Amino acid sequence: MIQEVTPILTLAKRAKTASRKLAVVRTETKDSALHAGADRLLANTARLQEANAVDVAEATAQGMATPLIDRLLLDRGRIEAMANGLRQVASLADPVGRINQGWVRPNGLQIERMHVPLGVVAIIYEGRPNVTSDAFGLCLKSGNAAFLRGSSSAINSNLAIAAVLREALEATGLPVDALVMVDDTRRQAALEFMQQDAYIDCLIPRGGPALIQSILDNATVPYVLDGAGNCHVYVDSRAELDMALKILINAKTQRTGVCNAAESLVLHRDIAAEFLPQAIAALVGVEWVGDSQACEISAAISPAAPQDFATEFLSMKMSVKVVDSLAAAIEHIRQNSTGHSEAIVTNDMRAAQRFVREVDAAAVLVNASTRFVDGEEFGFGAEIGISTQKLHARGPMGLEQLTTTKYVLRGDGHVRA
Amino acid sequence: MIQEVTPILTLAKRAKTASRKLAVVRTETKDSALHAGADRLLANTARLQEANAVDVAEATAQGMATPLIDRLLLDRGRIEAMANGLRQVASLADPVGRINQGWVRPNGLQIERMHVPLGVVAIIYEGRPNVTSDAFGLCLKSGNAAFLRGSSSAINSNLAIAAVLREALEATGLPVDALVMVDDTRRQAALEFMQQDAYIDCLIPRGGPALIQSILDNATVPYVLDGAGNCHVYVDSRAELDMALKILINAKTQRTGVCNAAESLVLHRDIAAEFLPQAIAALVGVEWVGDSQACEISAAISPAAPQDFATEFLSMKMSVKVVDSLAAAIEHIRQNSTGHSEAIVTNDMRAAQRFVREVDAAAVLVNASTRFVDGEEFGFGAEIGISTQKLHARGPMGLEQLTTTKYVLRGDGHVRA
Repeated sequence: MIQEVTPILTLAKRAKTASRKLAVVRTETKDSALHAGADRLLANTARLQEANAVDVAEATAQGMATPLIDRLLLDRGRIEAMANGLRQVASLADPVGRINQGWVRPNGLQIERMHVPLGVVAIIYEGRPNVTSDAFGLCLKSGNAAFLRGSSSAINSNLAIAAVLREALEATGLPVDALVMVDDTRRQAALEFMQQDAYIDCLIPRGGPALIQSILDNATVPYVLDGAGNCHVYVDSRAELDMALKILINAKTQRTGVCNAAESLVLHRDIAAEFLPQAIAALVGVEWVGDSQACEISAAISPAAPQDFATEFLSMKMSVKVVDSLAAAIEHIRQNSTGHSEAIVTNDMRAAQRFVREVDAAAVLVNASTRFVDGEEFGFGAEIGISTQKLHARGPMGLEQLTTTKYVLRGDGHVRA
Repeated sequence: MIQEVTPILTLAKRAKTASRKLAVVRTETKDSALHAGADRLLANTARLQEANAVDVAEATAQGMATPLIDRLLLDRGRIEAMANGLRQVASLADPVGRINQGWVRPNGLQIERMHVPLGVVAIIYEGRPNVTSDAFGLCLKSGNAAFLRGSSSAINSNLAIAAVLREALEATGLPVDALVMVDDTRRQAALEFMQQDAYIDCLIPRGGPALIQSILDNATVPYVLDGAGNCHVYVDSRAELDMALKILINAKTQRTGVCNAAESLVLHRDIAAEFLPQAIAALVGVEWVGDSQACEISAAISPAAPQDFATEFLSMKMSVKVVDSLAAAIEHIRQNSTGHSEAIVTNDMRAAQRFVREVDAAAVLVNASTRFVDGEEFGFGAEIGISTQKLHARGPMGLEQLTTTKYVLRGDGHVRA
């Protein structure tokens, strides 16, 4: 079936035009649109499932793997979850207009630094069609137009969700182009999408390493990257070992396929022989690879290949490294960290302070599981991703990270001397 | 004369290694190094002037224009100004370690958001050798290694300043590679410089449109752009005209060659016929170009070419546009603004609020001159530039904008449910 597609440039301009109106819309209107969107998603369950069935049939015909087809599937529960997500975003505080600093200069000039929307937030994502709704919700609440490009395998689902949400926008009196969905599934369109400098204020990719690399190679728009998490748990010589075990179990096994799960255990040599067998016994089903000292302690550990320590396994596999000192632990982490989340377990004040100061990551944890590094767990209510870059946003990104700031200066005829 | 130059990659690695040590240095040590740098710049005046004389002789031989040679010149006064600049930065508050948010989750987990150095801050700049010292000072105080690339015409001056400051670092016990100066003046080296993704955490260009374009085309490192300022002063129908005149004179003529100077006057039609002749009389020496309505009011105004309204003149030239309404003024500014600084003069509360809300720029001013948009005038003490981009930093960039943040989480064996 040959379909007409809309040029990316045309779509980008529509999003930009809508963004100017959105920037000055009241919170109560945005919240009404979010609730209207939730209502309409539920009311259109059959329509959404029909569109989704086309994607699923196509994916099945093309021999897509079962777990990926499962990700693609829109059942009633998932549609309800999308609706609930929009309602939850409606319940969050609006960051737009928030003054985060304000002062008066000696000459009487008043200066405020105010959060304002970025403008057009572009999101390029893979797999799950629910991202369409989630991303739209966060963008709308923060006053931004959402310019979205999902995966080609979910195109019918994504366009159906977008159509329903655009109806909700229209019904609320907001510009429908507050949500613009790319309908061109060709790879060329993805490249054009990430090169709309004149219209996109910030691009956020949600996907795997290949997508990130494509952004690094091709994007000309500003972006915030949601990077990998090769997270470490370091158990210090003065750790309480039962606490360390509890944290390790949680960090490694509560959910293995997520960026804030632990991938590597670093042990001070003073506690390694006592702790490691306990850890191996407790982390049922984990495959261990380690350095020579770790292998000496337990036969359950295979020798680690050099790249193992730099690998985000995202599975029930864990590397273990025995170190002589806190300094060696920090150095090992420095060499292998992706700058996401790094934890120390210790009762030693000085060790904790040094670890916090010297480890360079979006989040550093003392006596807590790396799994807490997450927008929901931070209390942000929702997140668009977790940034591992240093500029603009670092760590979980909530509504506030979807804004920029504007200085407002108020004088009384002030002129510079 | 053929000189050995150090490969950019080697220099980048040195800066990165130094940055790790700098990140944890106490404020008092950094301040000592800044004062030691100031002392040594003064003590080495003759040496600096000798190196500078080589650059000036070369530039003269190559027929460089007199104003550019003046920019290049290092006289005693300018060396003193560099020293004073370092001492002033020493007197500023250290942003490193500052907690800008902190809260406790319902489960008792403590979360802090702490300012930490970026790491390696790269600065590429043109002309004036004093930038070498100024940039170093701001980078050091904010805990960053300064990785610098000046213009080839100032290479001897820059290397001499860097050598003196590195001696000060060494004398203070800090890593000398807290200041790394590129000695390779070839264009290829500049391109390599802006592609050191593995080592540069943030690149800040200080220079003209050609440099900015080169960054946009070639840089693979994260950067913050110090963009152009096509700044407007809008005089509303309810402005006090004497205040408007005072602000306009200051914004346009106090200093014309700077980014926060006004380039365009926008007048509400209700006051245009009264105000414009006053403005023309008061802004002595200004060349006016305007739209047809402005030209009708005064014969002193030439018809503006279409691109005039989008031009940052940086000289005694000003465009003037007469509009029918506040909305038309905002729309005119939107079409021509570079997003730097935009001012309204009005006594009307509603007009001021609408202008502040709808104009999208780094700074929006009410009844004040655009010239206030500057790190010094904001009270930042010093600035590395004024960002016109939306991510990371927007508006004047002081020490705090040379940091990123790190989340610190403290628990008591906390695990995620």
